[in-house]
Amino acid sequence: MATQPEFEHPNKAFGWAARDTSGVLSPFNFSRRETGEKDVAFKVLYCGICHSDLHMIKNEWGMSTYPLVPGHEIAGIVTEVGSKVEKFKIGDKVGVGCLVDSCRACQNCEENLENYCPKQTNTYSAKYSDGSITYGGYSDSMVADEHFIVHIPDGLPLESAAPLLCAGITVYSPLRYFGLDKPGMNIGIVGLGGLGHLGVKFAKAFGANVTVISTSPNKEKEAIENLGADSFLISHDQDKMQAAMGTLDGIIDTVSADHPLLPLVGLLKYHGKLVMVGAPDKPPELPHIPLIMGRKTISGSGIGGMKETQEMIDFAAKHNIKPDIEVIPVDYVNTAMKRLLKADVKYRFVLDIGNTLKPSS
Amino acid sequence: MATQPEFEHPNKAFGWAARDTSGVLSPFNFSRRETGEKDVAFKVLYCGICHSDLHMIKNEWGMSTYPLVPGHEIAGIVTEVGSKVEKFKIGDKVGVGCLVDSCRACQNCEENLENYCPKQTNTYSAKYSDGSITYGGYSDSMVADEHFIVHIPDGLPLESAAPLLCAGITVYSPLRYFGLDKPGMNIGIVGLGGLGHLGVKFAKAFGANVTVISTSPNKEKEAIENLGADSFLISHDQDKMQAAMGTLDGIIDTVSADHPLLPLVGLLKYHGKLVMVGAPDKPPELPHIPLIMGRKTISGSGIGGMKETQEMIDFAAKHNIKPDIEVIPVDYVNTAMKRLLKADVKYRFVLDIGNTLKPSS
Repeated sequence: MATQPEFEHPNKAFGWAARDTSGVLSPFNFSRRETGEKDVAFKVLYCGICHSDLHMIKNEWGMSTYPLVPGHEIAGIVTEVGSKVEKFKIGDKVGVGCLVDSCRACQNCEENLENYCPKQTNTYSAKYSDGSITYGGYSDSMVADEHFIVHIPDGLPLESAAPLLCAGITVYSPLRYFGLDKPGMNIGIVGLGGLGHLGVKFAKAFGANVTVISTSPNKEKEAIENLGADSFLISHDQDKMQAAMGTLDGIIDTVSADHPLLPLVGLLKYHGKLVMVGAPDKPPELPHIPLIMGRKTISGSGIGGMKETQEMIDFAAKHNIKPDIEVIPVDYVNTAMKRLLKADVKYRFVLDIGNTLKPSS
Repeated sequence: MATQPEFEHPNKAFGWAARDTSGVLSPFNFSRRETGEKDVAFKVLYCGICHSDLHMIKNEWGMSTYPLVPGHEIAGIVTEVGSKVEKFKIGDKVGVGCLVDSCRACQNCEENLENYCPKQTNTYSAKYSDGSITYGGYSDSMVADEHFIVHIPDGLPLESAAPLLCAGITVYSPLRYFGLDKPGMNIGIVGLGGLGHLGVKFAKAFGANVTVISTSPNKEKEAIENLGADSFLISHDQDKMQAAMGTLDGIIDTVSADHPLLPLVGLLKYHGKLVMVGAPDKPPELPHIPLIMGRKTISGSGIGGMKETQEMIDFAAKHNIKPDIEVIPVDYVNTAMKRLLKADVKYRFVLDIGNTLKPSS
């Protein structure tokens, strides 16, 4: 019989976990490993709720291990550092995103692309190389090798920093890698949720003219007035979509509902690039003829490496980029999940772990 | 009533044309415009048969105008130059590929990407800006603005140069543009036909390790021994495909039959690029999850600009790259079309216009 999570490791921990595919979260006693010589341990103060948490608590991707403590947008204050830790000290403001480990030896790891390491260890519901399960940030404490810890700069509130660690880097990285970060470019952001609204803010900070493409006419005012987008297209408004054909240098498509790519590829200029960061259930049709006729590109991108995540959060602090968040108490989490399923949040729930996580025993 | 093709222009011309969707080609008297001040006129000696000629003579793309003289892989000797022609003189060896005109003003034209000009004029079955129809290279003479004429270097036989003007540039351009031209790269070429066999030769000349991916086991010997490929994969051999997963930096997919992209994307390394230059009838499924997980890219590419076409043909001459061709007399063309439909040619038919085109009247 496997060791009980509560007694597996020396350091007691407490959080909220899903126990089965109902996805209902409830208080959960578990434990964290001792702070190793390269480890940083921290008290969790805030944790963002990512849409993938919703998939994972219900095992919708078939890779969940229960009990499952979600959360990979984690921010807090360092409480302990190992003897060989170089970059952090007690009291530092830090964060952990989607990864807590990787092989550190493959080419991707060598190129600071731990997010593409085939042996990457996800922050929750994954296994460390020693076989122990990873638990996420819906909990009071966290520990990870310093390589996977991000400094959160002064001036960036911890609750704002948390969602950047997944949603932020997911849109920042492709804007950078695919060269969509040049001032004056015309950039489209498809979908205005947790990822999309940050996509608008980063693209604006890079100096782009930003067009939001959405199915919801009622998001126009919000996109333009609150988020600073330059224009707004309703994806089923054929006339306006037609008028905008061939105008965009690049598009970040954040939508995970099934949707056709042909109209989006049509919006691209010649040689333009569409990058998918949302993952619809079904493979979409590839509009190959427009790709060939216009030398266009469709790519995918997933989060970012640790070096780039630090760069992103420093950039966010410098340019005052913050997600729009709704800070909620921990015991609201199951209600928040129901609202998230209906996309009823502007734009990210953040759990106030520090003030509202109450040990049950 | 429109002017008869024979009397539309001052210079008599003779070729073979399709008259209807049967696609049967037969002798045809028409005319070419007077050699304008920026024009180069040349005697056609050879013309390659491109698979798109087969589509066009039968109006399978719905854009054919009859009578239709096909041919956009045209090589010959200059017979007349206009008063303002700067780059050519009588007696020069020259060629014309897929384009005879473009707007010369748009951004693509300014960047030597006439092949992506929205107003490009195809070499046959298109209209010049004055409304007159373009006729291709299955004919005794050709005329075009010097901007659309390519020098054929000494050492490259004209019959070998002809197929490079479409098939050659179609594979050369994406290898260059997408950075798949670096020595030591692992490059896949899907399909071993007119395009694919030149893809192998160009990729080898760039210093790549080349893998041919084909549905036909009987092409292995040919690919390795005659074309110089380093390895060969049968696309339905699951074990070997599995063993080759994640090994290729880039793939040029030349196949125009419907085929799944997922196995090809699987062959790519992280951050690898698949470029489609063949156009299947139906849009394929986009394997979006592997794209996201591996930051992979699917792009399209169509022929190349005039500057790059010249660069390609100079490169081919320098590196002794020649297509494998079967030179045929003009009156064999209808038989050749039937064989082409069955992919029964290694790897390009070239019409011997100079020696076998006999005026019918």
